[in-house]
Amino acid sequence: MNSFGRIFRVSIFGESHGESVGVNIDGCPAGLTLQLPDFLPDLERRKGGTQKGTTPRQEEDLPIFKSGLFNNVTTGAPITILFENKNTRSGDYEKLRSVPRPGHADFVAHQKFGGYEDYRGGGHFSGRLTLPLVGAGVIAKKLLKDITISASITEIGGEKNVESGLQRAIEQKDSVGGIVECRVNGLPAGLGEPFFDSVESLLAHAVFAIPAVRGIEFGTGFAAARMFGVEHNDAILDMEGRTQTNHAGGIVGGISNGNELVYRIAIKPTSSTPKQQHTLNWETGETEDFSVKGRHDLCIALRVPPVLEAVTAIVLADLMCLENKLPRIL
Amino acid sequence: MNSFGRIFRVSIFGESHGESVGVNIDGCPAGLTLQLPDFLPDLERRKGGTQKGTTPRQEEDLPIFKSGLFNNVTTGAPITILFENKNTRSGDYEKLRSVPRPGHADFVAHQKFGGYEDYRGGGHFSGRLTLPLVGAGVIAKKLLKDITISASITEIGGEKNVESGLQRAIEQKDSVGGIVECRVNGLPAGLGEPFFDSVESLLAHAVFAIPAVRGIEFGTGFAAARMFGVEHNDAILDMEGRTQTNHAGGIVGGISNGNELVYRIAIKPTSSTPKQQHTLNWETGETEDFSVKGRHDLCIALRVPPVLEAVTAIVLADLMCLENKLPRIL
Amino acid sequence: MNSFGRIFRVSIFGESHGESVGVNIDGCPAGLTLQLPDFLPDLERRKGGTQKGTTPRQEEDLPIFKSGLFNNVTTGAPITILFENKNTRSGDYEKLRSVPRPGHADFVAHQKFGGYEDYRGGGHFSGRLTLPLVGAGVIAKKLLKDITISASITEIGGEKNVESGLQRAIEQKDSVGGIVECRVNGLPAGLGEPFFDSVESLLAHAVFAIPAVRGIEFGTGFAAARMFGVEHNDAILDMEGRTQTNHAGGIVGGISNGNELVYRIAIKPTSSTPKQQHTLNWETGETEDFSVKGRHDLCIALRVPPVLEAVTAIVLADLMCLENKLPRIL
Amino acid sequence: MNSFGRIFRVSIFGESHGESVGVNIDGCPAGLTLQLPDFLPDLERRKGGTQKGTTPRQEEDLPIFKSGLFNNVTTGAPITILFENKNTRSGDYEKLRSVPRPGHADFVAHQKFGGYEDYRGGGHFSGRLTLPLVGAGVIAKKLLKDITISASITEIGGEKNVESGLQRAIEQKDSVGGIVECRVNGLPAGLGEPFFDSVESLLAHAVFAIPAVRGIEFGTGFAAARMFGVEHNDAILDMEGRTQTNHAGGIVGGISNGNELVYRIAIKPTSSTPKQQHTLNWETGETEDFSVKGRHDLCIALRVPPVLEAVTAIVLADLMCLENKLPRIL
Repeated sequence: MNSFGRIFRVSIFGESHGESVGVNIDGCPAGLTLQLPDFLPDLERRKGGTQKGTTPRQEEDLPIFKSGLFNNVTTGAPITILFENKNTRSGDYEKLRSVPRPGHADFVAHQKFGGYEDYRGGGHFSGRLTLPLVGAGVIAKKLLKDITISASITEIGGEKNVESGLQRAIEQKDSVGGIVECRVNGLPAGLGEPFFDSVESLLAHAVFAIPAVRGIEFGTGFAAARMFGVEHNDAILDMEGRTQTNHAGGIVGGISNGNELVYRIAIKPTSSTPKQQHTLNWETGETEDFSVKGRHDLCIALRVPPVLEAVTAIVLADLMCLENKLPRIL
Repeated sequence: MNSFGRIFRVSIFGESHGESVGVNIDGCPAGLTLQLPDFLPDLERRKGGTQKGTTPRQEEDLPIFKSGLFNNVTTGAPITILFENKNTRSGDYEKLRSVPRPGHADFVAHQKFGGYEDYRGGGHFSGRLTLPLVGAGVIAKKLLKDITISASITEIGGEKNVESGLQRAIEQKDSVGGIVECRVNGLPAGLGEPFFDSVESLLAHAVFAIPAVRGIEFGTGFAAARMFGVEHNDAILDMEGRTQTNHAGGIVGGISNGNELVYRIAIKPTSSTPKQQHTLNWETGETEDFSVKGRHDLCIALRVPPVLEAVTAIVLADLMCLENKLPRIL
Repeated sequence: MNSFGRIFRVSIFGESHGESVGVNIDGCPAGLTLQLPDFLPDLERRKGGTQKGTTPRQEEDLPIFKSGLFNNVTTGAPITILFENKNTRSGDYEKLRSVPRPGHADFVAHQKFGGYEDYRGGGHFSGRLTLPLVGAGVIAKKLLKDITISASITEIGGEKNVESGLQRAIEQKDSVGGIVECRVNGLPAGLGEPFFDSVESLLAHAVFAIPAVRGIEFGTGFAAARMFGVEHNDAILDMEGRTQTNHAGGIVGGISNGNELVYRIAIKPTSSTPKQQHTLNWETGETEDFSVKGRHDLCIALRVPPVLEAVTAIVLADLMCLENKLPRIL
Repeated sequence: MNSFGRIFRVSIFGESHGESVGVNIDGCPAGLTLQLPDFLPDLERRKGGTQKGTTPRQEEDLPIFKSGLFNNVTTGAPITILFENKNTRSGDYEKLRSVPRPGHADFVAHQKFGGYEDYRGGGHFSGRLTLPLVGAGVIAKKLLKDITISASITEIGGEKNVESGLQRAIEQKDSVGGIVECRVNGLPAGLGEPFFDSVESLLAHAVFAIPAVRGIEFGTGFAAARMFGVEHNDAILDMEGRTQTNHAGGIVGGISNGNELVYRIAIKPTSSTPKQQHTLNWETGETEDFSVKGRHDLCIALRVPPVLEAVTAIVLADLMCLENKLPRIL
């Protein structure tokens, strides 16, 4: 399934070098005003090409509304949004076909889809699919109103200073990974279910839909494994459930506790590194030296924050619906 | 939902101090022989009471088959298994009712269920629900046959040596966390979907159903965020997709690549520490000194490996069904 | 899947001659008082053995609550209810094994489950599974409060008079079918979705889970196919949407319109007729004369009304949840 | 949800007078060749404007492939198809806004979506949404290969002769209903599940997504309610399960039995009749005389057969996937 959500359900589709990518949203409440300017800031933040370390591929990336809106307001019917692919240079990729790129989905896509996959630019397995995710996230954020979601980079290449981490990658002529943190404020207590539909379960499920994510941790996360209990437990201070510390990252027993929701994700270095690699050639059946051409991000983590916010908003909007905390008509 | 899976669907139910906990499995192929001895090893591994650092609560924990089996063979109809709660001492918990235990679900359960929750021993929010998970995992493992799943503790309290980490907790009279690693061999390439149903998404979803998990990472995980691309990429060596290194942990683009699946989870220290804590009293509305009585694990991570294996097997069995790689009749 | 519902989710399990049948309900709001007397009237209505034309098999059919209740109130956790099978006489069925009974699931169950199915009394394919449906329906009805659901027999064997239709079957020594009508009052307008989750879609989906149902029609139903438009259209009379006639049966465009919901189902004659039949013997591979022994209903339609009400209540409770019209805490 | 299916999942979207209608198909096997000519016959059959008794609205109705195809072959990624709305004359509908048309969704849409619904031509509640259904059906039919699905009209306005039934409606200047029958040959035994996912449950669920359907019956259907058991039971003749009669319509115990699948649906008369009606005016709050203008089908049943085939194919393709009877790569 390329879908997520039980009430507010988001489905993405499209290919990197096909005609378009897009999103279908079923279950969005009626009465939400949506206009182009609502989308521009997050779409712009996601875009490559303007920032050091991101791809020079330039796309306009404007949402084209195909269904579910009437006079710029959601109708309650499914919303479909397309984003056209205009600036495709598939020629860059054709020559890679004989070498499944290390770290890319080329090999597994071939295994899974028997060679029928669209291999141009990774086809459906492309970071370009984060564009419709961001589009859906804009809608989810608007639904969440006073709940604020903010993601930011906390590390690039192991450095707390984004600039210097990135500079090192540029000097090394190699791609590099990073850490992105997401914080949510204003979330009510009581969202999520024990066990399979815990808030962590649902967020992690959706977050691993973002390409290049290799790990997720909530609150103190992996550091919690090295703490003692009395140190890790968050003392409850008042009847609203405010806690003295927030090692739990706002989730206890799988349920939101009304404190700030905090989690971090690890992004691997972009698979398309300019460096030479030694890997299999499908045609010869032998390994050989190989290097990736084409236009790529040196540090894909730089473009993740708006995507992480979008995915978080999508999950939380669905959870709010499930708890009757979002009206069906606004 | 207290359920997981699209074809092989597992639903758990029950309370810590209610009459029983149990599991319903819908979509299990017909023709699988299941007998008591199949269940005993994993149920025994999960059990507390025999190991240093685990709860002295002793339960027989034998599966009682209620449906779906005929002459010890699965029939294709839904399987229901109960485990009785015999050794309950709810008195231990009644007195805690006025103080929502820090790190426990007491507070959020009250928010979510309006005071109607069964609060005895955490009620439905109890590690005891991992018992039916292990039961379901036994069945999933048998379905997976030659695919081997093995979880083990790699750290306790920050020490690579389990014994010494545990000893330090005993000396400190405090609970302690740990890291558990899971490795799966024999998995075919091609499982999972790009984006929302990636192998990582589904495993993470299910794994966060295990109480006390605070993070998950695949392959090199968080360390990948500090690596360069050429270092992180796994060179493909042959037509079967074997890779020189396995930083990806067996998953690329959300799809299994046929190499060993590797991931790790962080377990927080048991919330029920013997140490004194200062936290809210619901009756007075004031914070006060408080300490947890009752029988508890000092290090819950010790009991996690069979649970992690079970959850992993459940996810993989469902993925195998989705890819037509498990017959409907064995 | 042996489950139904997106928020209020009902799963049934068990076999006719196994140890028990039962139901798991996930997503039931917290705070609903449930006691044995709530269940008795509908369980009694469903029971055979006291009425002319129903099976002499006598079961106590008392619900045994296994999870989800605390002090007789729902907790918000999954509810599990068992009903024991005590009065089983499998010997009656063993001898049928060589002859797949016409009209029964014996043949298809064998095809589907490869001979591993529990064949005793139809195993999982048994009318006895309507018992947990009725149990779940009791809970759903209590949730729906002022919405009243009432099913009644309108025809037996083609006669509008139940007594005479039944009498004719007794005289013929053959089983007989019937029509059951369901009416729901107090339903709010706006339930259901256009297309796939129309009220008719969901009701029909659930209603065909009742064994022996061969057709369903809403409002004027099949008669509508013979009407002219101006005759069939229901003129709207006031701002609440009351209509002069109710040919639509309370549903327009897949959505409830606030008028009485009306539909009817066709029940085939009980497959287990006392009459002799000529059909295949699996052992010989030849057809032969055959007659069904055992205890059976002459007219299964007689026992359907409480089951139809239950199924209707289950669907409507889920629809009310989906529209935020049922609180999560009562 | 505007979606149907667990593996082969179809989602429809769009509005009658919006920019387009369309469909998203997730879970389609890779390797299926799809070209424009595959779609034309069924799209043409569905089209109005060429046949007596159907709407003069003329649309080109050509599928525009937006994702999931590469070199005219399915890739395994989600397929998105748009159909543009070109020949819209919304002016026809604007004037109706003050009068919710009897038999139409105008009133309930307003209740459900609070006035935000796109009311032009019924908006999302439009027969035009059967166009993407037919598009998805073409794909499902190709997947089903040797399984043949054929729907035909058996009655118009109570007459077995379509011509004369239609002629009577034309003379009466009123719309009229009809009966459509669907027959499926080549279906394997063993599809479907007992209870909630019976073949009847799933077909009925999907069939009631077709606007104007008021009833469905399988095999002998409602007539079964008037039959005796020995008369209704289908004697099994051989080891393949062929039966002497086919009163069951190819489904026993919710499972396909390998015989011809037969069912019928009742279609109500088109709600938009040329006749004058007396109904509520929303603006005045009073009832008044009213007649529908615009271009409409006099007998919508005439256009149902390809839609019914499409919906049937969609359900069966999903059932085949669930039983491992459709490979993931063709």
